[in-house]
Amino acid sequence: MRTLDWVDDGIEMIDQTKLPQKTETLRVETVDDLVAAIKRLSIRGAPALGVAGAYGVAMAARLHDPGGDADRFEAAVERIRNARPTAVNLGAMVDRVAPIARVDPSAALAEAHRIRDEELAASVAMGERGADLVEELVGGSGADRDGVRVMTICNTGGLATVERGTALAVVQTLHERGRLAEALAVETRPLLQGGRLTTWELQRMGAPHRLLVDSAGPFLLARGAADVVLIGADRVAANGDTANKIGSFSLALGAANAGVPFVVVAPESTVDLATGTGDDIEIEDRGADEVACVRGVPIAPEGTEAINPAFDVTPAGLITALVTDRRVVRLDEGETP
Amino acid sequence: MRTLDWVDDGIEMIDQTKLPQKTETLRVETVDDLVAAIKRLSIRGAPALGVAGAYGVAMAARLHDPGGDADRFEAAVERIRNARPTAVNLGAMVDRVAPIARVDPSAALAEAHRIRDEELAASVAMGERGADLVEELVGGSGADRDGVRVMTICNTGGLATVERGTALAVVQTLHERGRLAEALAVETRPLLQGGRLTTWELQRMGAPHRLLVDSAGPFLLARGAADVVLIGADRVAANGDTANKIGSFSLALGAANAGVPFVVVAPESTVDLATGTGDDIEIEDRGADEVACVRGVPIAPEGTEAINPAFDVTPAGLITALVTDRRVVRLDEGETP
Repeated sequence: MRTLDWVDDGIEMIDQTKLPQKTETLRVETVDDLVAAIKRLSIRGAPALGVAGAYGVAMAARLHDPGGDADRFEAAVERIRNARPTAVNLGAMVDRVAPIARVDPSAALAEAHRIRDEELAASVAMGERGADLVEELVGGSGADRDGVRVMTICNTGGLATVERGTALAVVQTLHERGRLAEALAVETRPLLQGGRLTTWELQRMGAPHRLLVDSAGPFLLARGAADVVLIGADRVAANGDTANKIGSFSLALGAANAGVPFVVVAPESTVDLATGTGDDIEIEDRGADEVACVRGVPIAPEGTEAINPAFDVTPAGLITALVTDRRVVRLDEGETP
Repeated sequence: MRTLDWVDDGIEMIDQTKLPQKTETLRVETVDDLVAAIKRLSIRGAPALGVAGAYGVAMAARLHDPGGDADRFEAAVERIRNARPTAVNLGAMVDRVAPIARVDPSAALAEAHRIRDEELAASVAMGERGADLVEELVGGSGADRDGVRVMTICNTGGLATVERGTALAVVQTLHERGRLAEALAVETRPLLQGGRLTTWELQRMGAPHRLLVDSAGPFLLARGAADVVLIGADRVAANGDTANKIGSFSLALGAANAGVPFVVVAPESTVDLATGTGDDIEIEDRGADEVACVRGVPIAPEGTEAINPAFDVTPAGLITALVTDRRVVRLDEGETP
């Protein structure tokens, strides 16, 4: 099942704000609707955003001829690029399709399809490579004998890519190999992608799993509840510092404290060599509403202010390895992306 | 305003499960109702549980004459003691009133009143002593000049004691001294005592404050957002290891990483010298419902299993100091409780 695809001259996607209660398909036929869907997180996850951005540019090229109506086309491209500031894939894929659209609008869609197919292949590759690495890292331990217990954050499965995913593709591959003992998903406040989406995907793949509140992760790691932590990434800097969902840094501190490997799984397109270190990554603050309300229910007195960083940055020194669709970078051995 | 008190031969308490939307008084006239109120967290916080337990035994002594109806009295005492397994104050205060009730049932209520008054005095003392320590710890820093930014977890205010509180009494004292720049409250999943109760108390005391999701705490500490972390305690072991709300350990790792002092504020009654280390503390698992639902709204697919440790244990090595109503124990300098 694909999270999003190009169907009958429009983008169709599973509306992730409705999960897990409802599995609804959202159809988008204008750039405004796409930008709105990205902003309210109906579609999310760095690789999925890349594919959505590519299809968005193809859509813009159909609606506004880049030759004849260049201003409107360029404005549409800018709006797509800026729908989420932290996700590098979105901008990168927009920048890959837009120049082609300017030369030949009819070629834009074919390029977007190519990006989608590359993402599908990348997920398979990350799953295999990551599962191999995990097996190597737990070799000789109890997990080697009884199967691997994985802790993970946010949603990095098919819903975050197009199929299978990044960190969750590794979980799926371990499960398909009969090597997964249990997946522990942290709920991932404020938007609860772990609780709403990752559990839904784990249930669909038939993998044993349990849910926990975010702040229980580091303590349960200290008590030996998991053999490895696997996370995705929104952006990996040239030195290996990794921006990912808020809470990743806590798990990294917890993994380091417990002596458990901490592995980042992300496509090559997430590696941004133009960003030197994590200090150069802009952290989006998504405002108080997401914190003060949970699924529409207020959990704080009216008017309560909040700090709501959507992402944090885990320094390379806390990361064991980065797994991409093309390679494994052993940050713990001094390698850099 | 007192969180709970003895009024007209019954216990009256603010029903904390209704906050912050409604401020309702719950009246309890039987041991069964008291045990139910403790179990569903209408009354919570280690010191408040101690006072509630003391009044509970006084109530049991009135309902079941410990001389004439000893079996029913002793059974009631046992049910009160076991309503929450981790909180040492509850058991300790039950054990203080019960022997008096056995000798002279009419003296039990006076002893419970004495326990309440001691808790009131202890909150004042902890606030003063803790504020003095914080001033000393931030001396010479930016916080010395501009006021102190405090991060805290769960609810440790008047709602957790009878008035003022433990860690939040320190915040209140700093605020009364004009030395509080900002209080940062982590929401404290699963039951959101930070979001629902601490923000409500900070608002009532007119203290500047912001709310954040639990997993943002360690990252914001790394980015220099707070000068000190203040937490309460459910039980402090003889070596200084401290059991407190789940998420305390994450903040302790974050504080250590950021070089920020981490201070436990708790009454002497929380120190349990009979418990050698944190390894001897039983961690209550409160089941999946609290994790899979937020304020009654499901956030995970039906049937999702969870791990839900209500508490964690922060090792003494991550704690700068323990402040009680009688003393400051500098764990960072090798002192022990």
